[in-house]
Amino acid sequence: MAGEHSRSLGKGSTAPGAVPEGLIRLYSMRFCPFAQRTRLVLRAKGISYEVININLKNKPDWLFEKNPYGLVPILETRKGQLIYESPITCDYLDEAFPGKKLLPSDPYERAFQKMLLERFSKITPLFFKYAAAVKDGQDTTAQKAEVTEKLGKLEEILSKRNTTFYGGDSVSMIDYMIWPWFERLEAFELTDSLSHAPKLQHWMEAMKEDPAVQATMTDTQTFKGFLQLYVKNSPEACDYGL
Amino acid sequence: MAGEHSRSLGKGSTAPGAVPEGLIRLYSMRFCPFAQRTRLVLRAKGISYEVININLKNKPDWLFEKNPYGLVPILETRKGQLIYESPITCDYLDEAFPGKKLLPSDPYERAFQKMLLERFSKITPLFFKYAAAVKDGQDTTAQKAEVTEKLGKLEEILSKRNTTFYGGDSVSMIDYMIWPWFERLEAFELTDSLSHAPKLQHWMEAMKEDPAVQATMTDTQTFKGFLQLYVKNSPEACDYGL
Repeated sequence: MAGEHSRSLGKGSTAPGAVPEGLIRLYSMRFCPFAQRTRLVLRAKGISYEVININLKNKPDWLFEKNPYGLVPILETRKGQLIYESPITCDYLDEAFPGKKLLPSDPYERAFQKMLLERFSKITPLFFKYAAAVKDGQDTTAQKAEVTEKLGKLEEILSKRNTTFYGGDSVSMIDYMIWPWFERLEAFELTDSLSHAPKLQHWMEAMKEDPAVQATMTDTQTFKGFLQLYVKNSPEACDYGL
Repeated sequence: MAGEHSRSLGKGSTAPGAVPEGLIRLYSMRFCPFAQRTRLVLRAKGISYEVININLKNKPDWLFEKNPYGLVPILETRKGQLIYESPITCDYLDEAFPGKKLLPSDPYERAFQKMLLERFSKITPLFFKYAAAVKDGQDTTAQKAEVTEKLGKLEEILSKRNTTFYGGDSVSMIDYMIWPWFERLEAFELTDSLSHAPKLQHWMEAMKEDPAVQATMTDTQTFKGFLQLYVKNSPEACDYGL
């Protein structure tokens, strides 16, 4: 898709014009796990989109007109509608576009996925906290134990479900919502935290077969290179490898 | 409805049995703004429900089997399904039960309501922070200014919409999601923060005409009595006035 691997726009850049006909625009960053959620859903639903990458370590002023919090992902429609917060962008795409529905239709199953996402939102900050602690040469035993314990709870939930994926035997919304952090486990040197989680390991293998997952995958070495620059607040981080 | 004004269950109490046929159960607390969201939706949709009030300052052990975070609201169905986190309980009720849909059908309008709720979730903690600061005799000028500024942003959004309610000219989900904190403005001594917000003042007057709002309303003196005990962590707070 246009721009998915393009250089990021930073401070001093000009805001892009109207969204081209027949496309939806995604403001993204190549290594952002939250924006990857939206990219996964765009791919899974076969939606035509363009990507504008943003330099999150040197943000353009106009970014705050698109999202007052200055974060990606942001969707922009041809009509100029702006949608941000990753789960909101994903639900929007699932509702607004035809094709396979990624959210289940049963109200309890929908609630189950939202509760699981809420639980997962308490895990995501631990990844960057861990990376920052590693960078500062701190003892990370306690942080690693916390990630392991929280992922252990996800293992337990999957085990109780007794299906390959969280929503049954095919990929659904919640799998895409949590996948980006699992893709980064190796880059974060947290693979060990799954050593007693056979169900999650099996889930990861199954996820790697999914076309949307494959299309948005980044290799571990590239992630590591990005991460090293990112924790140092380098303005080059977001364009690493280009 | 059964139990809405009943005494709360605390540590040492027995967990209630199966949910009676034809009802959905809500674990609640009479003064909790989050649980009020769910009560508003139950009322607005005319759903038959029973309420079990929980002593949040002396929680029963079994509460954590219903919700690992030990918080209300929690919905429990006849089948034993458990749903927690207030916006998730409200969406569930709107989807699972017939009657007027409280969420709009247009995908962008749904996203708009979710983004507004996300923004509002940054305001709710300020209320209790403010009450705690008042209790401790601190200077609260800065806290009050922060609430006023954030509510001013909500005024701006309503003004741009140019409708009585946030979703148009009738009450919809987002109005119920934010209402409980406005009902408490006077008890929190924060009424001033709306003195330059005529649209929100008008919205408040219109909300007070809504039957679900009227059915779940608590008077300011009772709130104040509760709040005084609550900030002191009194185990009597949740049963204030019974």
